[in-house]
Amino acid sequence: MALSKKPVTGMKDILPEEMKIRNYVQNVIKDTYKAFGFTQIETPCVENISNLTSKQGGENEKLIFKILKRGEKLNLETAKEEMDLVDNGLRYDLTVPLVRYYSKNANDLPSPFKALQMGNVWRADRPQRGRYRQFMQCDIDILGDPSNLAEIELILATTTTLGKLEFKNFQIRINERRILKAMAAYSGFPEESYDSVFIILDKMDKIGLEGVKEELIKYEFSPEAVEKYTDLFKELEGQKDPIAYLAEKLGDYMGDDVKEWMNEIIESVRATKSSDFEIVFDPTLVRGMSYYTGTIFEIAIPEFGGSCGGGGRYDKMVGKFTGHDVPACGFSIGFERIVLLLMEQGFKIPEDYDKVVYLIEKGVSGDALCDVIANAQEERKSGKQVLVTRMNKNKKFQKEQLMAQGYNEFKEFYKNPLK
Amino acid sequence: MALSKKPVTGMKDILPEEMKIRNYVQNVIKDTYKAFGFTQIETPCVENISNLTSKQGGENEKLIFKILKRGEKLNLETAKEEMDLVDNGLRYDLTVPLVRYYSKNANDLPSPFKALQMGNVWRADRPQRGRYRQFMQCDIDILGDPSNLAEIELILATTTTLGKLEFKNFQIRINERRILKAMAAYSGFPEESYDSVFIILDKMDKIGLEGVKEELIKYEFSPEAVEKYTDLFKELEGQKDPIAYLAEKLGDYMGDDVKEWMNEIIESVRATKSSDFEIVFDPTLVRGMSYYTGTIFEIAIPEFGGSCGGGGRYDKMVGKFTGHDVPACGFSIGFERIVLLLMEQGFKIPEDYDKVVYLIEKGVSGDALCDVIANAQEERKSGKQVLVTRMNKNKKFQKEQLMAQGYNEFKEFYKNPLK
Repeated sequence: MALSKKPVTGMKDILPEEMKIRNYVQNVIKDTYKAFGFTQIETPCVENISNLTSKQGGENEKLIFKILKRGEKLNLETAKEEMDLVDNGLRYDLTVPLVRYYSKNANDLPSPFKALQMGNVWRADRPQRGRYRQFMQCDIDILGDPSNLAEIELILATTTTLGKLEFKNFQIRINERRILKAMAAYSGFPEESYDSVFIILDKMDKIGLEGVKEELIKYEFSPEAVEKYTDLFKELEGQKDPIAYLAEKLGDYMGDDVKEWMNEIIESVRATKSSDFEIVFDPTLVRGMSYYTGTIFEIAIPEFGGSCGGGGRYDKMVGKFTGHDVPACGFSIGFERIVLLLMEQGFKIPEDYDKVVYLIEKGVSGDALCDVIANAQEERKSGKQVLVTRMNKNKKFQKEQLMAQGYNEFKEFYKNPLK
Repeated sequence: MALSKKPVTGMKDILPEEMKIRNYVQNVIKDTYKAFGFTQIETPCVENISNLTSKQGGENEKLIFKILKRGEKLNLETAKEEMDLVDNGLRYDLTVPLVRYYSKNANDLPSPFKALQMGNVWRADRPQRGRYRQFMQCDIDILGDPSNLAEIELILATTTTLGKLEFKNFQIRINERRILKAMAAYSGFPEESYDSVFIILDKMDKIGLEGVKEELIKYEFSPEAVEKYTDLFKELEGQKDPIAYLAEKLGDYMGDDVKEWMNEIIESVRATKSSDFEIVFDPTLVRGMSYYTGTIFEIAIPEFGGSCGGGGRYDKMVGKFTGHDVPACGFSIGFERIVLLLMEQGFKIPEDYDKVVYLIEKGVSGDALCDVIANAQEERKSGKQVLVTRMNKNKKFQKEQLMAQGYNEFKEFYKNPLK
């Protein structure tokens, strides 16, 4: 029989040491979000393939693990294309399933609804170091609140969590799809090309403003629009109040309500934050998902190159399911990156109780064995962790392994106690 | 766009009320198993299809959700059968993945290794009330211990957990594949037909001894063997010490070591148990999985018709991966059934802190909003759960909904405080 010992390509087994850290981070996340009134829910890992391929997920829709139809529904001979064979797929994020869930269950949920989700998602990405095809996402979302109180609470909850995990000196970068659009409109780009402009703008941190300019020109946009657009970004550098500057400069393209909306978020977060971070307006922030309609934000942690989570407002997605739009805003914290960073830093979780090992020689049985186990049961009742296990021939190595696992007390039981 | 609001057939959305109970049960399970020295690990939900179809899983192998190959590997035109299209599948249990995991990572794990796994599994069963196609399994396993200390610790850990969840008066039913085989051999069934005999015996609780007899005869076994076999079960009824009776009667077919093995488990568990249950020898217990090689056991809770978890010894499975057998024994607690029962009983989880709502009128913004949020942040620091949310037009209904969620304190903030 040819059984494979390896996990499937791009997915990983989680060893005890990492599992401890994952559990710890999950508990901090859960406890903190609970204090903010978020309610945990769960959706199945499997979704209808039509929901997963409805153009909400951008590039992620190309990476879906698809599930074969079963029984009579599977007809290999008449199948002409992939979709004839497939009815479901593994979810690639938690937002599309959440919106489906809310659309179905809204009557049984409070309004606004503050949801917490922690669950695995799957993307058939090219395998690379530190990125896996199955990974955990932890999202909070507020459905039914049109006001920027949603943004403020999401940012406060996420940053409080990062603070509790001892992250310092990080940044929340924030922008608005309406500002992105106003800048493009003011510069004279045609509306149907905004998305292409933003995809190029998104490369700013890699290729710089000059690189962005070159790519825009290469894309055959009018040189005048490109000039006006890149000049705007130049002018913004060094501005004390870039949002006020843009509101003034862009005039009706942007509108004073957008300025107030953004200022209220930034100032409220600054005034009430409970951990050590900066919130900064970043006019170059784009975020890839096509479903965003308003505020967008991202976490930047100095120890990382890239982002460590992000989110934004998506007021039009519930309407795709129900025909009636519901305002919605979410924030996803970068669980896997946080775990990776804590592992790299050799993070140690404070052990909460004594860890004892009972090593029992092979011959101990019957009443003698009973006595040992009864003893262990008593110690467990008193709050200790007691591992009862057979003694190996190489007792020294066994003890070393167990000490590496955090056990610090050993009791040994022999058939002949005088031994 | 035709988006579906329903979860996929046979799977379910988990609403907040159930989620709370699931979290509570998971925490009790984790904490208790940790006190017994079990170490949590995780494997991917997706496994190589060849591992899932290696005849370890019995009937479950017919229920696999199979995953389509991707990219160039998928060739629709040349595909002749299902397996040409498929490379992976969703796991149907946690035992096969655990054994793969252990086979790969044994060098990095202590020996014996006591593993705890909590994770979803998938079976494309016919949908029916209370049974879903995605469900949570919680397994503990001990790999590398050939002695019955493994069985004793697994039974103690599982029953302690059930006790902490306030289950009482339940039963652990226990049997041995070696006793099952000895009884069949003594009666004169040919060795290659044992599995067929056991499949019929497994129906005992539904069709009774007479029904078993009829089916065995219908199967064209020798009437003499059937008579001898069913007589054995009759004789066992009312025996004070059925194991001793069998050891005596079956002689060399069974062997005294099996008697001692079973007695030591039963007596040790009775002497050291920390919750209210009975452990009883049940010679009719079969358990379906073909991988069991020794002890088998099952939880029977009076509130349920069927079993609420079970397990046993499977000493030959690691060898399928590595070529070298490693003794192994596991116990799976019926997580979904426990949750269902607690829900039906209207189980309420003790809330661990105050739950406050800040209701904010629509017009409150700027500095006034800041003050309210700052206040909430202070209360959160002091350990309270504070939901900050916009006030709906129908405030009375909103409050009712929130009270149903356990909120008991309301503070209201208006644009014009005199209102």
